[in-house]
Amino acid sequence: MQKLLLKDCSALVDDGANGFRHLKSAWIGIENDTIAYIGETMPEGDWQQKSMRGALLIPGLINGHTHAAMTLLRGLGSGLPLDRWLKEAIFPVEDRLTEADMRAGNALAQMEMLRTGTTSYSDMYYMLHTEAELCSVSGMKVNLARPITCFDSNETARESVRAKESIELFDTWHGKENGRIRVDFSIHAEYTCRERIAREYAEIGKARGARMHLHLSETVKEHEECKAKYGKTPTEWFRDLGVFDLATAAAHCVTIEDRDIEILKSYGVSPVHNPSSNMKLGSGFMRLPKLLKSGLNVGIGTDGTASNDNLNMLEEMHLAALIHNGNLCDPTAIQAEQVLAMATRNGAKLQGREDTGCLAVGKKADIVAVNMDTPHLVPSFDPVSTLLYSAQGSDVCMTMVDGRVLYENGEYKTIDEEKVRYEVKAALDRLYQ
Amino acid sequence: MQKLLLKDCSALVDDGANGFRHLKSAWIGIENDTIAYIGETMPEGDWQQKSMRGALLIPGLINGHTHAAMTLLRGLGSGLPLDRWLKEAIFPVEDRLTEADMRAGNALAQMEMLRTGTTSYSDMYYMLHTEAELCSVSGMKVNLARPITCFDSNETARESVRAKESIELFDTWHGKENGRIRVDFSIHAEYTCRERIAREYAEIGKARGARMHLHLSETVKEHEECKAKYGKTPTEWFRDLGVFDLATAAAHCVTIEDRDIEILKSYGVSPVHNPSSNMKLGSGFMRLPKLLKSGLNVGIGTDGTASNDNLNMLEEMHLAALIHNGNLCDPTAIQAEQVLAMATRNGAKLQGREDTGCLAVGKKADIVAVNMDTPHLVPSFDPVSTLLYSAQGSDVCMTMVDGRVLYENGEYKTIDEEKVRYEVKAALDRLYQ
Repeated sequence: MQKLLLKDCSALVDDGANGFRHLKSAWIGIENDTIAYIGETMPEGDWQQKSMRGALLIPGLINGHTHAAMTLLRGLGSGLPLDRWLKEAIFPVEDRLTEADMRAGNALAQMEMLRTGTTSYSDMYYMLHTEAELCSVSGMKVNLARPITCFDSNETARESVRAKESIELFDTWHGKENGRIRVDFSIHAEYTCRERIAREYAEIGKARGARMHLHLSETVKEHEECKAKYGKTPTEWFRDLGVFDLATAAAHCVTIEDRDIEILKSYGVSPVHNPSSNMKLGSGFMRLPKLLKSGLNVGIGTDGTASNDNLNMLEEMHLAALIHNGNLCDPTAIQAEQVLAMATRNGAKLQGREDTGCLAVGKKADIVAVNMDTPHLVPSFDPVSTLLYSAQGSDVCMTMVDGRVLYENGEYKTIDEEKVRYEVKAALDRLYQ
Repeated sequence: MQKLLLKDCSALVDDGANGFRHLKSAWIGIENDTIAYIGETMPEGDWQQKSMRGALLIPGLINGHTHAAMTLLRGLGSGLPLDRWLKEAIFPVEDRLTEADMRAGNALAQMEMLRTGTTSYSDMYYMLHTEAELCSVSGMKVNLARPITCFDSNETARESVRAKESIELFDTWHGKENGRIRVDFSIHAEYTCRERIAREYAEIGKARGARMHLHLSETVKEHEECKAKYGKTPTEWFRDLGVFDLATAAAHCVTIEDRDIEILKSYGVSPVHNPSSNMKLGSGFMRLPKLLKSGLNVGIGTDGTASNDNLNMLEEMHLAALIHNGNLCDPTAIQAEQVLAMATRNGAKLQGREDTGCLAVGKKADIVAVNMDTPHLVPSFDPVSTLLYSAQGSDVCMTMVDGRVLYENGEYKTIDEEKVRYEVKAALDRLYQ
């Protein structure tokens, strides 16, 4: 049994009431993949000790919505309006993506995520067995979602190639690697799906006890067109088709109405906030303060790097903490601690991972260390504020998943950086020659 | 004579039409403090060569508005509403600041700024001779501004201690260190000043050929109270007192009206955009697309670290590039190249520095190198987009001012990091014991 003791650090640990308690001098003991001790004094017993050199330990960050392999399309078509961006820049390249590209793009994404403190992410894309295989080796946690799309009202879930891929992915990979790899069912969005297939597919997922990952009310256009077509909001549409009978993570939720909030709440749907992408693409601002006040479990995601253009959760958290104060002209609209909870505890909940999301005895050791000994983090009056308003992704000095160090001080422990760089270069050469 | 040749790099150089040209393979020759050669082939002559290892060279970033020594108050009172933040958190500490504190706070600020690519900054604070002395040694460029405040309608500029300090600072330091140190006249804001002193002080500055640095229409409250009191906007108030007869940099400009834009334009006033601070304090969004479209010379600043909470210009640029697209629901509202110009060319102009702000032969060698060989900057289709949407302050690997390397790969060449850390700790212990 591995018995590892993290010392010489402070930590933001679970306060037992959905908040954070700052231990100025923390000792965190890990037995195998689980936190076995948290205290302000050294525990008894025989531990392998690891000095964290004054770092602040926080729960691993959970990226609630991304399209990881789109790293290969990072920043493509920046500055174009939305429809031209999709049709001229994104779709033609996506049409050319091969399995080898997916492997390279996902590995590049994991390097960036580990370096900036992400331990787990919810990915919506395709050819996802390549990503499952990668996670088996890299040690990251992932919720994979192969989304279905459908433009034929008569198509059934049994006939759909995408639905078949999604279900096979679930049956093959869900719960593997000691639960690190999960598979969610996924409907891309209301405007890219039809009623019959959505209803049938949701029933199949429900029978398997699967969760759902989808895009919801990202833009005014999508939201209003749905109302014009069906006489209901996208939220009502999904509810009426039984989709929310599956525990659902709903990305974007920018144009959510009050009546939608009630529905999301009664079905326990978790909205995922994607501030960078919503701003860059001109979608607008989620009503985050309102959604949090209503008691919804709101997470945070980066979205893909074609619209972000990075996978840096600390940056995304910073934006979530700032922009709503500006938009509502209220310096108290969002508090730093709420955003840290969104990126950790709420993220774990929306992924269906009850065993992580905070630093507490009995939880999995998904831990990130932030180097506080740098000019831009001095002084620090409140570690949560420092983390949210001053810290950068580059301040992460260690990322641990299930008690295993995957990244530390510039070095990847489970990913061959040079090999990934080579494969990424080869993929880019193929895609953009 | 120093003849230094930067090689093995790409560069965003002046295109001669207020834009940027990307040289994929660049050679930049520097003679003493000035750029003497830019080309895609190696120049003739005897040069000391310096490999930039694939970095992207950009013009030095210019922070158009900050209060540098407030690093000692970084993040103080985060989450409080504006009036309580000022009265309960900020003012009591500012009352205790000593010259030693100022020295420590300014040095800490310079360390952070150099590390994130800032070569020049416009600082509004007090005891600024300490900062001038520091810049003499550190090699940074600065525009110092000791702001006057006045709450007595009868007080004259000759009687004001603050005005006296401001004028003495100008007479002692303006143009020193080969022009690296400049001193601006400064009126804190309309709501903290009175007409008589503002008019007289502006006349004194005008006679000296000085520039002006002030806060303008930061909040709706300030703007509307001015209109109620004087029957004019703060912009009209300053104009009518002759303040804009001095070349002026106006921080914030959040609640600027259309009639104000016309005035700012006709007087050549440069607004300075402070997105982090305006959002965190709930002031709102500057009408940046409108201001740029009107032809105003808009710069970018971080404001002080009590409301930001850092001095990272790359982060500030990122915000300026994103938030207006979100606020206006228009993905084309702001283009990346506009923001890079704001942080470089426009910044130089608002500081009254015609000899810097872009990479061109004959300009001062104020150059920043960005390491592009890192997972989160791959691929890069357009270096300006990569810089604005993907890059982090921590990607800066070298900062050069007037041909002199001040920071490179974690090392400060002119600042004794350990000494500053010691002095900062001592200052913090005194201030917050």
